[in-house]
Amino acid sequence: MITVGVIGYGYWGPNLVRNFAEVPGGRVGFVTDLRPARLSQATARYPATKVSTDYRDVINDPSVDAVAIATPVSSHFDLAMAALRAGKHVLVEKPMTATSEQSMTLIDEAEKRGLVLMVDHTFVYTSAVARMRELTQSGDLGEIYYYDSVRINLGLFQHDVNVLWDLAVHDLSIMDYVLAQTPVAVSATGLAHVPGQPENIAYMTMFFGGRLIAHVHVNWLAPVKVRRTLLGGSRRMIVFDDLEASEKIKVYDRGISVNPSQENVYQMLVGYRAGDMWAPQLGIAEALHTEAKHFLDCIENKKTPTTDGHAGLRVVRLLEAATRSMSQQGALVPVGASTPAV
Amino acid sequence: MITVGVIGYGYWGPNLVRNFAEVPGGRVGFVTDLRPARLSQATARYPATKVSTDYRDVINDPSVDAVAIATPVSSHFDLAMAALRAGKHVLVEKPMTATSEQSMTLIDEAEKRGLVLMVDHTFVYTSAVARMRELTQSGDLGEIYYYDSVRINLGLFQHDVNVLWDLAVHDLSIMDYVLAQTPVAVSATGLAHVPGQPENIAYMTMFFGGRLIAHVHVNWLAPVKVRRTLLGGSRRMIVFDDLEASEKIKVYDRGISVNPSQENVYQMLVGYRAGDMWAPQLGIAEALHTEAKHFLDCIENKKTPTTDGHAGLRVVRLLEAATRSMSQQGALVPVGASTPAV
Amino acid sequence: MITVGVIGYGYWGPNLVRNFAEVPGGRVGFVTDLRPARLSQATARYPATKVSTDYRDVINDPSVDAVAIATPVSSHFDLAMAALRAGKHVLVEKPMTATSEQSMTLIDEAEKRGLVLMVDHTFVYTSAVARMRELTQSGDLGEIYYYDSVRINLGLFQHDVNVLWDLAVHDLSIMDYVLAQTPVAVSATGLAHVPGQPENIAYMTMFFGGRLIAHVHVNWLAPVKVRRTLLGGSRRMIVFDDLEASEKIKVYDRGISVNPSQENVYQMLVGYRAGDMWAPQLGIAEALHTEAKHFLDCIENKKTPTTDGHAGLRVVRLLEAATRSMSQQGALVPVGASTPAV
Amino acid sequence: MITVGVIGYGYWGPNLVRNFAEVPGGRVGFVTDLRPARLSQATARYPATKVSTDYRDVINDPSVDAVAIATPVSSHFDLAMAALRAGKHVLVEKPMTATSEQSMTLIDEAEKRGLVLMVDHTFVYTSAVARMRELTQSGDLGEIYYYDSVRINLGLFQHDVNVLWDLAVHDLSIMDYVLAQTPVAVSATGLAHVPGQPENIAYMTMFFGGRLIAHVHVNWLAPVKVRRTLLGGSRRMIVFDDLEASEKIKVYDRGISVNPSQENVYQMLVGYRAGDMWAPQLGIAEALHTEAKHFLDCIENKKTPTTDGHAGLRVVRLLEAATRSMSQQGALVPVGASTPAV
Repeated sequence: MITVGVIGYGYWGPNLVRNFAEVPGGRVGFVTDLRPARLSQATARYPATKVSTDYRDVINDPSVDAVAIATPVSSHFDLAMAALRAGKHVLVEKPMTATSEQSMTLIDEAEKRGLVLMVDHTFVYTSAVARMRELTQSGDLGEIYYYDSVRINLGLFQHDVNVLWDLAVHDLSIMDYVLAQTPVAVSATGLAHVPGQPENIAYMTMFFGGRLIAHVHVNWLAPVKVRRTLLGGSRRMIVFDDLEASEKIKVYDRGISVNPSQENVYQMLVGYRAGDMWAPQLGIAEALHTEAKHFLDCIENKKTPTTDGHAGLRVVRLLEAATRSMSQQGALVPVGASTPAV
Repeated sequence: MITVGVIGYGYWGPNLVRNFAEVPGGRVGFVTDLRPARLSQATARYPATKVSTDYRDVINDPSVDAVAIATPVSSHFDLAMAALRAGKHVLVEKPMTATSEQSMTLIDEAEKRGLVLMVDHTFVYTSAVARMRELTQSGDLGEIYYYDSVRINLGLFQHDVNVLWDLAVHDLSIMDYVLAQTPVAVSATGLAHVPGQPENIAYMTMFFGGRLIAHVHVNWLAPVKVRRTLLGGSRRMIVFDDLEASEKIKVYDRGISVNPSQENVYQMLVGYRAGDMWAPQLGIAEALHTEAKHFLDCIENKKTPTTDGHAGLRVVRLLEAATRSMSQQGALVPVGASTPAV
Repeated sequence: MITVGVIGYGYWGPNLVRNFAEVPGGRVGFVTDLRPARLSQATARYPATKVSTDYRDVINDPSVDAVAIATPVSSHFDLAMAALRAGKHVLVEKPMTATSEQSMTLIDEAEKRGLVLMVDHTFVYTSAVARMRELTQSGDLGEIYYYDSVRINLGLFQHDVNVLWDLAVHDLSIMDYVLAQTPVAVSATGLAHVPGQPENIAYMTMFFGGRLIAHVHVNWLAPVKVRRTLLGGSRRMIVFDDLEASEKIKVYDRGISVNPSQENVYQMLVGYRAGDMWAPQLGIAEALHTEAKHFLDCIENKKTPTTDGHAGLRVVRLLEAATRSMSQQGALVPVGASTPAV
Repeated sequence: MITVGVIGYGYWGPNLVRNFAEVPGGRVGFVTDLRPARLSQATARYPATKVSTDYRDVINDPSVDAVAIATPVSSHFDLAMAALRAGKHVLVEKPMTATSEQSMTLIDEAEKRGLVLMVDHTFVYTSAVARMRELTQSGDLGEIYYYDSVRINLGLFQHDVNVLWDLAVHDLSIMDYVLAQTPVAVSATGLAHVPGQPENIAYMTMFFGGRLIAHVHVNWLAPVKVRRTLLGGSRRMIVFDDLEASEKIKVYDRGISVNPSQENVYQMLVGYRAGDMWAPQLGIAEALHTEAKHFLDCIENKKTPTTDGHAGLRVVRLLEAATRSMSQQGALVPVGASTPAV
């Protein structure tokens, strides 16, 4: 039985608590939050769980084996560092840290101590994204040409981070897993419509050095909610619409066929190929349940998590590069070297 | 009765011929195309209309008052110039010319000769776009924050122009009319997936100097067709979905309300406002019919077309800037000065 | 503080428990279910609540003021009767009872004892249905012409009741509230595709004696889920799509205009009227929360519930008539007299 | 070369003319209509085609081999009979005639004279319906359980026929081809909302004697357009949505699995089976083109049309039975014996 302490009981914390409470082999030993009102709610639901407004109580509790951190980004590094130094395994909300330097420090600390450091890239644990990776890595889609995602809605404005850190982070974590390639340079643009606040609309292009291009479009000020990702390959293409109740993943047997000979200047070099569409049945397990189980499995069996500290670092590096590019209205910014995705 | 000659009877030409044949006060006197097979089709439908494989025949025909040009972009300038010099009024397919210099030369020539020069920005003549302009210019939407458009499908690859010149041109012409503001700088990215061919996927951000930002996303290699434009204002927002059979325009009474006082660091500065949605009934006139009528009216009554040569020039300037930026992977490119939209 | 006991902790019971636990002025004092495993789950979530496998324990508990019954239909009458005789107010799952005679007996018993008898017609307490009633009763829609509903999915086959009692009951309860008219006769058809099981597909037409007609189409064996209701009036029409995330209610300013003079035998007497569409913003309160509050309010303030025993009876009468008609392949069956809806 | 004369140049006639003009081996020799204005339009498009306001001119024209009839239903019989007696092959608009007796008379006359009699059940010639028949007749769907169709919109009110004869006729012709089974009895309900006019809303259930049931729901007074057919089988189910631009046909690998043993009264006998969805690529040929080709092929090669007079008769018999049932508010009406579909 692994005992988990959860720091932060705001929007996401209750989901972590519920899943670690339900996953076999796990239990929630402690919940902390700065706000006593939130702790009352935790206590109402989980009377046996200890609570505190001081995160140090969970870190100093010897019965706690692992800590899950669901607080604002700016606090991730300090909390994770304190937990690792206290010998706890760590699962940290995405984005992993506010800077890539902090991510590297956490990775070093965890490796030095032989502790599991995992980042909560939740989408990676959905059956939809798992299927996308499978179809991509098996060669089913052919050569991958583009990843294109729209993630917009009338959303909560964040004060500490721009919309890329809040929404694009989902796509960067999906891409990291599905494509298993790391962009070499980023061009991003965006704007803040509320004075003094971070950018609430942003567009981010990623170059990979070859024929692959990726683009993410995020917006907190859209009248409608859209969650749609296109993954275009030379043989097949996927549309992933996360708002579809069923049929989240549609695989289109469509593409182009290039005709090498060109007899007539008026004729097309490039032809279409249109075929069937296919929507695979997806599993219905809750992603966070799968993820919680994976975290416990990594702790018990000394495995490296799918979304380890390096994955977290790669995503933070992209966010840093994009933020820099956005402040220069699209100027190309190289992405710092990092351990490639597997 | 104004007699129109149509040069080019490929994809779009037949639509021009049909509309000029049906619009009151107009008739089609001549059709030319390089391909005899196309002319046979024209003759089959319009036995009374003269045809030729030589465009000079229509230009030299004294019974022809005006010429409509529906040929590849690269030939627009030469054909339009020849027509103007022969004293014909000119309607030219979009984009108006291959360079902004060519556009300026045409504008000068038409003005010198007192001839109508109009560019076929068809969308401007739809009831959906007319309604968007109305709602924008009346102040109904409040301050305009963004224009965001996705225009993708499995499309015909062009050999002479990239996807921006083929698809983004629609959005640039809509924006020119609806926003009545001209971008000051452009950042664009894109990629060619077929060796030796122009870019088939592109993303283009436009800056206007204030709190307005625009983005257009075009793709010839998408498995699904999307035609969706968001127009975000401080008071209301529009979703324009051109693939909807009815309800192409939806007006959302949604936005954000900014709270100037901030007592608590944990409280939100920015709140939502969510209200009703409203889809106005739109007229069902064919845009090209409205446009053909407008062209004839401008000729007869010496009016300036809504989509005159200056509108055509503004759009070509944006395409030039975007193409330059795209070749530099997003580097910011200023847009040359031009007569502002009205 | 009113103490509620809940009988039946299967699919719907937990929702009742949660809402009565959260609604101000209410508490859940007892939960019973035949299955000990279900009770363990109740205890895990609500450690302070008493549980039992014997429903008599809750009925005999003097601290319990009211009983909510969420068991199979066949047991509703006995449980509700026992509760009323023990002096408890009763909220009973829909359909209220297995026969209209049972419903009448319950109504009499409750009236005799001055107890609240309410049926859980949940949809009546949604903001969507409230808005439909408002628009209907205010005359906004004009004369009501038809109510037409499709409620299909790949659903759980019931063994004790046919698909009308499981799914059409929702529409009958919505109609009872929105139209405030009672059908005079029913024609229903249907089929059982699994030998020995009740009908899993059914169609039900209701006549009202005037120009109003209603039709409900239900199916447990459909590959897709549909929940769409049309409410057609002479002036406006509503589409209610319960699967829409937002915009559940759309009001169409459409109809027909009848031209009384008829000069020409080939001309149309009846013309269309097409206008705007409008989707009102709806409240987001959970229906069951609103309903639980209403139940407590009726108890405390001796009010008659919106969905009282008579509403439950009217719905059961329709289900009886439809079942009879269905067994005779559509033969018209009159609906027994009952107190009309308000 | 087969010369076709077209009687009736209203809504559908121009489509017949265009297709017979374009199909190889065919030409349009004559067009007649009571309204001179319609004939002017025909002449404008087809200057070489003879026109007349008197249908006898086309029937007496010896150069005409076949006649296509696109007039109101009430005139079909007289026109078709006159054409057959003049030795012309006949293609007649659906429904074939106003009574089944008329249909039988036409069938006899055509057989006696060795002439082709074909009814224009257009949907049968679409690639979507062809695919549905294929999947049904191959056994791919398993045993067919139900056909369920919704065909509603804000439509033109007809004065001479009720909505079943105008809209349900499409479904009856599709069913006749896809199911290749003939209903034995019908129960229909409906209402006329405009005094003195035929029913504008109708519901029609068909029984086949076994476990197959069919239902068609039609409405001229709906605020939205719906064209959706479900075809449910024991192994797979189809959703056919004719308003989808692509993906008109979706095949769901879903159904129920019946468990013969029943150990526990609380356990489910019937389980779900949910699997992939698949949307086959469909051909894009225009149905009427395929149909015109088939008509000419039947004439030249003395073949029996897929939609011969017997198919027309079977559909008319269903419409008669449904109209009779509707006038008796759903009373079951047997369908007269007829040659079964192949």
